[in-house]
Amino acid sequence: MTDYKFEGWCGHGPDSAEGKMKWEEYEPKTWSEDDVDIKISHCGICGSDIHTLRSGWYPTPYPCVVGHEIIGKAVRIGKNVTHIQQGDRVGVGAQAFSCLKPDCPMCADGIENHCPKNVGTYGGVYEDKSKSYGGYANYNRTNSHFVFKIPEKIPSSHAAPLLCGGATLYNPLKTYGAKGKRVGIVGLGGLGHFGVLFAKALGAKSVTVISRSHTKESDARKLGADDFIATGDEGWEKKHAGSLDLIVCTVSSDKMPMQGYLELLAFRGTFVQVGAPEDPLPAFQAFSLIFKAIHITGSAIASPADIREMLQLVADQDIKPWVQEVPLKDANQAILDFEAGKPRYRFVLVNENYKD
Amino acid sequence: MTDYKFEGWCGHGPDSAEGKMKWEEYEPKTWSEDDVDIKISHCGICGSDIHTLRSGWYPTPYPCVVGHEIIGKAVRIGKNVTHIQQGDRVGVGAQAFSCLKPDCPMCADGIENHCPKNVGTYGGVYEDKSKSYGGYANYNRTNSHFVFKIPEKIPSSHAAPLLCGGATLYNPLKTYGAKGKRVGIVGLGGLGHFGVLFAKALGAKSVTVISRSHTKESDARKLGADDFIATGDEGWEKKHAGSLDLIVCTVSSDKMPMQGYLELLAFRGTFVQVGAPEDPLPAFQAFSLIFKAIHITGSAIASPADIREMLQLVADQDIKPWVQEVPLKDANQAILDFEAGKPRYRFVLVNENYKD
Repeated sequence: MTDYKFEGWCGHGPDSAEGKMKWEEYEPKTWSEDDVDIKISHCGICGSDIHTLRSGWYPTPYPCVVGHEIIGKAVRIGKNVTHIQQGDRVGVGAQAFSCLKPDCPMCADGIENHCPKNVGTYGGVYEDKSKSYGGYANYNRTNSHFVFKIPEKIPSSHAAPLLCGGATLYNPLKTYGAKGKRVGIVGLGGLGHFGVLFAKALGAKSVTVISRSHTKESDARKLGADDFIATGDEGWEKKHAGSLDLIVCTVSSDKMPMQGYLELLAFRGTFVQVGAPEDPLPAFQAFSLIFKAIHITGSAIASPADIREMLQLVADQDIKPWVQEVPLKDANQAILDFEAGKPRYRFVLVNENYKD
Repeated sequence: MTDYKFEGWCGHGPDSAEGKMKWEEYEPKTWSEDDVDIKISHCGICGSDIHTLRSGWYPTPYPCVVGHEIIGKAVRIGKNVTHIQQGDRVGVGAQAFSCLKPDCPMCADGIENHCPKNVGTYGGVYEDKSKSYGGYANYNRTNSHFVFKIPEKIPSSHAAPLLCGGATLYNPLKTYGAKGKRVGIVGLGGLGHFGVLFAKALGAKSVTVISRSHTKESDARKLGADDFIATGDEGWEKKHAGSLDLIVCTVSSDKMPMQGYLELLAFRGTFVQVGAPEDPLPAFQAFSLIFKAIHITGSAIASPADIREMLQLVADQDIKPWVQEVPLKDANQAILDFEAGKPRYRFVLVNENYKD
């Protein structure tokens, strides 16, 4: 059927997260005429990749090829697909499937990211028991509804991390109205740096980065942040109490100073958790909620419509993610470096064998 | 100035919560021409009273007379007061003061309950260092802005607990739109029973009471509940997962099964905490927030405008709180019985020395 094989960095158990993925051939999902095969040129490294490799969130159905910030060329197009042409530069984010039924309240409402039949781009199992495999690989097969054409102006290494990291921050900043607000971004990593870029692009009144130390303050300001709070500083919660309207928290540690973050919010402020710790969130006082009527909520990636909107915004405003390219062959080292907090601010694997 | 003395059940230390309040004379707040003196006939017993007597939330400025569900007769009216006449039957809830300045965003916006200069009906200290004293007493002095005329149709023993307990439930059910929603009320006590009554009155699609055991199921249904969940039953979270749109949680225990409550919410559901544990809320998984985009928030009593609206609704719809009258002289025993969970569902102290 195809003149190519699917090969990628396979994890076979939780220790694969320690840099022990193996390059192997695997069987992609069963082909359907709604699908697109993509020859992969780039794939971003996302924290979810490591959580999944080590079965941190739930038992991963090994073997598993992670990576859900995929860019490449459409090389095979299902008969039912109309919006993608052979040879198009396309991308796939964290979601590979939803039911797309007219009677699904989520899919019908354009929030496919909340469809209960949602299948992730990797580590997911389809109805026919075939599995989804991600982008640390040479090819990817995904339902075309979740395959996006990439605007010409966006370089591939910039486009890749937008598809999960970018989308995950764009969605809550848009939904909870960053425009005109004093926005706080907790954690300056791959996700957080998109938070600063998008909060500015969407017209936030001010953007404050909240980080443990001052190490990243200079970067934060270069990215566009107006202010910076280091939670290692004595009395930071009191000094900045009530100074923010909307906080998006990208940190996925159960040790984070949750109570302090909530103190930063002004009356009726909103705290959106997008980082997903493997353990429960730290506890906080009910009074934090009661006196200031603040809201704590969460946000899950973004819908296909929001992803397209985000890509257009990036193209229109010439937004530039900060990425570092790493050869795909070095994926094992790259995930170790990721866990060590080295990216400034997103690693993108580049397939050295990709030919256009 | 007055031909009466202020006397009430004074707490002198945390052990006063163990039924050791003493009947004593005390000095009320400094009189101002915005104030009203009330000869007290009834006062409801609220959980806050016990938290405050034992300094559970913060160090209470003893001596302290608790009680913030006060009904009585206006016997002295400040010169600046226009909406209360001598002899009117009036009430006071949990709030006795806010700045009422035109440049206060809270007071100007009609949400005096969130004014940063808010003074509680008891255990509060005014700018001139005089203190607020509550309703386990023969008289009360409060700023007239927080003194409400009671509609004729509402008996005093019903009106009393509406002023804090009722208001605390009415506010979130109105704010988050109980009408047409599947509403859950966690905890069937003084607060929770108002939740059932008001959710029905506001036109909820259904009302479900969530309680530990089935002990109160029959009462819940008599109050108007359509369904009942006992969290002592095996698998209750799974069985009822996603079945509610709006939950108001009246429980103030840090042992409550928070994670399970959140599982009951449907997509984009709202969880409103009104009970205030002395310890942090129990921890829960970030995924609860992320996948279902649910909101967790809190609500603090109600504004004067909302309290007036609630009183009118109770009069119009002939809503009947379930109360038990207790002589004021037995206040010490009553708070012990309250802590033992005996009220069905609100104790109201009746001043045996009150003459109309």
